[in-house]
Amino acid sequence: MSVSAVAADRSVCAPLPVLGRDVLVPLVTGGEVDYAALDYAASAPALQRVWDDVAAYAPYYGSVHRGAGYLSQLSTDLFENSRRTIAEFLGCRAEDQVVFTRSTTDSLNLLAAVLPQGTRVFVFETEHHASLLPWEQRPDVEVTYLNAPRTPQQAVDTLEKALAAREPYGPALVCVTGASNVTGELWPVRELAAAAHAHGARIVLDAAQLVPHHPVDLGELDADWVAFSGHKLYAPFGAGVLAGRADWLRDAEPYLAGGGASRKVSRRADGGVDVEWHTTAARHEAGSPNVIGAYAIASACQALTEAGFDGLVAREQELIARLRAGLADVPEVTVLSLFGEDAARVGVLSFVVEGWNSSHFAAALSAEYGIGVRDGLFCAHPLVRTLLGSEPQDPGECGAPDAAPGEKSLNAIRVSFGAGTPDEHVDRFVRAVKELVTNGARWNYRTEAGRCVPA
Amino acid sequence: MSVSAVAADRSVCAPLPVLGRDVLVPLVTGGEVDYAALDYAASAPALQRVWDDVAAYAPYYGSVHRGAGYLSQLSTDLFENSRRTIAEFLGCRAEDQVVFTRSTTDSLNLLAAVLPQGTRVFVFETEHHASLLPWEQRPDVEVTYLNAPRTPQQAVDTLEKALAAREPYGPALVCVTGASNVTGELWPVRELAAAAHAHGARIVLDAAQLVPHHPVDLGELDADWVAFSGHKLYAPFGAGVLAGRADWLRDAEPYLAGGGASRKVSRRADGGVDVEWHTTAARHEAGSPNVIGAYAIASACQALTEAGFDGLVAREQELIARLRAGLADVPEVTVLSLFGEDAARVGVLSFVVEGWNSSHFAAALSAEYGIGVRDGLFCAHPLVRTLLGSEPQDPGECGAPDAAPGEKSLNAIRVSFGAGTPDEHVDRFVRAVKELVTNGARWNYRTEAGRCVPA
Repeated sequence: MSVSAVAADRSVCAPLPVLGRDVLVPLVTGGEVDYAALDYAASAPALQRVWDDVAAYAPYYGSVHRGAGYLSQLSTDLFENSRRTIAEFLGCRAEDQVVFTRSTTDSLNLLAAVLPQGTRVFVFETEHHASLLPWEQRPDVEVTYLNAPRTPQQAVDTLEKALAAREPYGPALVCVTGASNVTGELWPVRELAAAAHAHGARIVLDAAQLVPHHPVDLGELDADWVAFSGHKLYAPFGAGVLAGRADWLRDAEPYLAGGGASRKVSRRADGGVDVEWHTTAARHEAGSPNVIGAYAIASACQALTEAGFDGLVAREQELIARLRAGLADVPEVTVLSLFGEDAARVGVLSFVVEGWNSSHFAAALSAEYGIGVRDGLFCAHPLVRTLLGSEPQDPGECGAPDAAPGEKSLNAIRVSFGAGTPDEHVDRFVRAVKELVTNGARWNYRTEAGRCVPA
Repeated sequence: MSVSAVAADRSVCAPLPVLGRDVLVPLVTGGEVDYAALDYAASAPALQRVWDDVAAYAPYYGSVHRGAGYLSQLSTDLFENSRRTIAEFLGCRAEDQVVFTRSTTDSLNLLAAVLPQGTRVFVFETEHHASLLPWEQRPDVEVTYLNAPRTPQQAVDTLEKALAAREPYGPALVCVTGASNVTGELWPVRELAAAAHAHGARIVLDAAQLVPHHPVDLGELDADWVAFSGHKLYAPFGAGVLAGRADWLRDAEPYLAGGGASRKVSRRADGGVDVEWHTTAARHEAGSPNVIGAYAIASACQALTEAGFDGLVAREQELIARLRAGLADVPEVTVLSLFGEDAARVGVLSFVVEGWNSSHFAAALSAEYGIGVRDGLFCAHPLVRTLLGSEPQDPGECGAPDAAPGEKSLNAIRVSFGAGTPDEHVDRFVRAVKELVTNGARWNYRTEAGRCVPA
């Protein structure tokens, strides 16, 4: 689909208003420019709508659940309605629970904590650390790390083979990302879910990078759980979500012990303490809930739905095409990919530039163009090293370009965007890449406290 | 100190501006009234200053730590400076760590997770569930629940005796509240810390109810850790803090596994995964941090310091005296207390009213006077039952007063306030109590979904 064809499509949304669009940042070369936030995959700016909703609610903030006052009851309703809004947005089934956590990482650690004794976990090495690492925290859980597949079909085949080979045939969980936080490529979630279920396993979808870019329907995907963060979904107020099957959640010990999760606590005759825990989502939500964080997520879900998610997807695909076409003109740029040119993807793209240390390149994008990207291994070390063909070691300092012709880069640059990104940010980015590659940096940079900064 | 003497003291602060002061709520008897938020102990309104700081920062929000862009670096500095501000506010020692959590509950669950193998925990039955329950989540940890003391000295004696009697003499932790979430009474933290240390134990201070009302200096108290929540400290943005000794934190497995906590992750030759974890506070903060939540807490700390904490304490003591003098006029009211009339206390007070079910009374305060309090057992079931002399059972429905003369109440009413409370709220509350006791409720109430609501 060509860029012009998409641009002519009347269903393409305009960028949604986000906070920070007018923020000016200084350029090392003089003057100021409006900040181009192209690090959405790390954390996205708040939608103006989300901010407005939070600001309108804030004076009505009150303690939830047992408060007898008017604002407590209003806040309790807002909190529980937020749960319902999110359940609807995710296509939850009637018996699913929506548990508020603090982030995707927290959600997946919660799921790890409630796995039945001895569960086998299957996870590709390509996952973000949040979905790669929680499982081995459980000493009774054995984890099988699957090698990076090079096609979606290979992912399914690899998983099926591993699941079929497991002994004994006990409870098993597959954890897979919906969209890679490094390549932006979509994973075949529906097919992986079918494979998991065919082999008596369950599946959790790490949707941190998918939910902001693409409708997710748990029922339609037939996935058992989905995890995501508010702060990547234009709602940076410290809340996340784990949604899905209630049984393992209900049968496990509470994730946090404390008030809210405990229904009744009493001393025993022997001096000990007996606790009766809730069996609802509250079981794993001990402590006063983050009402503003939960409401902000619900507000973002509503905003995306009302804007029309299809139109947002169409617009993002247009930006992706624009970006990829621009980078294709620069032979020094290598885009990282598992599934190749034709893979379906969201607005997340990582690359290396021949002759440049990635930290240096990212620093120059910021200091000379006001563009915010990310450099490093993106909390997905095994994946990025597999894509770079590099060995585990620390990235070089920014002053010394480490990717001379023929040498391998030690880290990469990631550009990512979403519903609030205007065309100009992507255009400026492509122009900046071309100018830096052609002319070199116009300033000197040095490493300070691990950051690459203007010298 | 009499009320008039305090009022004449020029060091008494005016109430600090908080969100929601002008919010009007409907009265069941007709008309509207500005809401009297008297449930600070559950969750306090945001300071206007905190809100303004958050609102000013929000357009500059960016991903922290590895982001190369200007706003990412600004946000990283803001986040790490917030940590330093809070450390200073708490009187942390040079080697202490400030770990951002989501709440007091989360902080104490984190501490439970990092206890050395086989630690013995000592906790009074009078604690909030957040400080009572996390310890038994660790199967290798034995918990000694100490009976409610009736004087601060008895608390110290009870603890010393229990610590001395422990066998074997291994690692031990004492967990104690700074100010009771039920009675508001201060606990002898310095003396308990000295007792703990004299017996080779460490101590963590649950300061959820103390930090908003009273300066806390870790070094001066010689406590090992302190835990508290932003949302009770006028910063309801989903963050909390555990601050204190670094060694147990550094030596333990990470609380959450994921990005941010992991310094280096690599595949092993045998297919497994090796992880090198951070040894700083980041070790226990996996996932993208709640930057706004952390900054809001730091902003609240600064606001209280700049307003003058001594003046705020003086003002709160004035309100306490006003409240207690007013309730002393009502013979039907029994104030709950462990340590008696002369105990030092913060602005948290629980009571029962002869002839009234507490839920019914709280509902009438809300519906007829626009006053928001709390009824129930306040997530401190053993303490409230000890104070009421009641058995563990569910509270009665609000339509049926359960505390007829001679009968024991099954739950209580809690009124609590803080830096944003004007005199008028306390005065209205005292007047409302007197009128309800004298005239009865002017409306009928019924129980709906566990709430007591106007019929």
